[in-house]
Amino acid sequence: MSDQSALSRVRVVLVQPSHPGNIGAAARALKTMGLNALWLVQPKRFPDAEATSRASGATDVLEAARVVDSLAEALQGVTVAGALTARRRELALPAQWSRDAAQTLAAQARQGSDVALVFGNETFGLSNEDVRLCQLPVMIPANPEYSSLNLGAAVQLMTYEMRMALADAGEAPTWSEPLATVDEVESLMAHIERATTATGFYNPENPKRLMPRLRRMFGRIALEKDEVNILRGMLSLFEKPAPGSPASTMARRDPDRDND
Amino acid sequence: MSDQSALSRVRVVLVQPSHPGNIGAAARALKTMGLNALWLVQPKRFPDAEATSRASGATDVLEAARVVDSLAEALQGVTVAGALTARRRELALPAQWSRDAAQTLAAQARQGSDVALVFGNETFGLSNEDVRLCQLPVMIPANPEYSSLNLGAAVQLMTYEMRMALADAGEAPTWSEPLATVDEVESLMAHIERATTATGFYNPENPKRLMPRLRRMFGRIALEKDEVNILRGMLSLFEKPAPGSPASTMARRDPDRDND
Repeated sequence: MSDQSALSRVRVVLVQPSHPGNIGAAARALKTMGLNALWLVQPKRFPDAEATSRASGATDVLEAARVVDSLAEALQGVTVAGALTARRRELALPAQWSRDAAQTLAAQARQGSDVALVFGNETFGLSNEDVRLCQLPVMIPANPEYSSLNLGAAVQLMTYEMRMALADAGEAPTWSEPLATVDEVESLMAHIERATTATGFYNPENPKRLMPRLRRMFGRIALEKDEVNILRGMLSLFEKPAPGSPASTMARRDPDRDND
Repeated sequence: MSDQSALSRVRVVLVQPSHPGNIGAAARALKTMGLNALWLVQPKRFPDAEATSRASGATDVLEAARVVDSLAEALQGVTVAGALTARRRELALPAQWSRDAAQTLAAQARQGSDVALVFGNETFGLSNEDVRLCQLPVMIPANPEYSSLNLGAAVQLMTYEMRMALADAGEAPTWSEPLATVDEVESLMAHIERATTATGFYNPENPKRLMPRLRRMFGRIALEKDEVNILRGMLSLFEKPAPGSPASTMARRDPDRDND
């Protein structure tokens, strides 16, 4: 089953939402994460200009929203419904944190089953009766002293978790310039050693930890071919005194002076 | 370092936000996830009644917000700044997805370093100059055909990822009624076998897969002591015919009849 088809198996159900702005924000959240099934149980105001405005470019999801009279209707055909709950209510079933719950629902959706995420009213949450229709209480980890997530924000977090669980984002973009080879980096190290010995900054008789430190630094940054060339170009001109510069020529004649 | 102290190391920086509502939503997002350091670079309107209204109970975070003139100011003392970027711009540095980036920043914050998450303007995003001040381009996985996350929603997702990376949520709440012991479950299985043999539903001479199927079903739900008692109580009354009920007594007399 493709990522997109599994994402389409995930219904987002808002039970008695009061603010049309939150319905719009939810539609936008669904669409950004590649979901499309929005169900509304007895919305207070819908359709509504504020919902359309907050949905931004996600009007297709908003217009396709199914409006029903009861949560039971919205859950027809669903195998597992997760009920978002902030309160530590007397739970009849073991709860899961958001990330684990997304995995539980994703496993069903990948097998071709419809699943749901159920969000309660902004003020009252879900009734006990509605929670009883759901198989999985879901909790979003939050600040115990202020766990008051906005409805749209909660929908955004859960749809994001569903996308993370169901859609492979692939590799993050990387700047793919060709890296330097080991021997090119070694030539650079030799060049640095030669040049800093000439100025007296480096003393091969008393090397301390200069070269290992530089090697560690260059190792961490995974030098590119071009970067090695830039650094060697810089070194070459440090080695070659500027015409008529007494300081530069002195440095080359007196390798034991302090570096300053 | 405690979870809370590490969360306090994470600055959220909004660069030139246009809509005060988004500043308020960001303050609320920070507080729900236990963060408190909000920085505003040249906000268009701040303070503003709409910001206060959208912040809901998070006015303390809003009032403590630092307003500065440049991103460089907001990043003073920060070791790693993550720049949220939606566009696949020519990246000078390898990007990380949101979840991995949160781990990168969390590792620094846990060591006591200040880190930052930097969000651009709602319409224009971050300038190339601002992105250059940041060490880590961060991308939120999204629907490639509609990746337009609202600013407040993006802040909510990233602060959630920081909490997930830095604060241990502990075990999800579980209904902790005492489980039945193995021998109690075995007694139940024996009881079922006896009762269904009596009705003829189960034939020990031709057992098929009834008992293994029931054992599998009960095994999945980890039966509680009370549940075993309820089921055995039900069985006991099925075994005992209701007074004067010919159907029940017939069933007991004729174990070979079809189950119907």
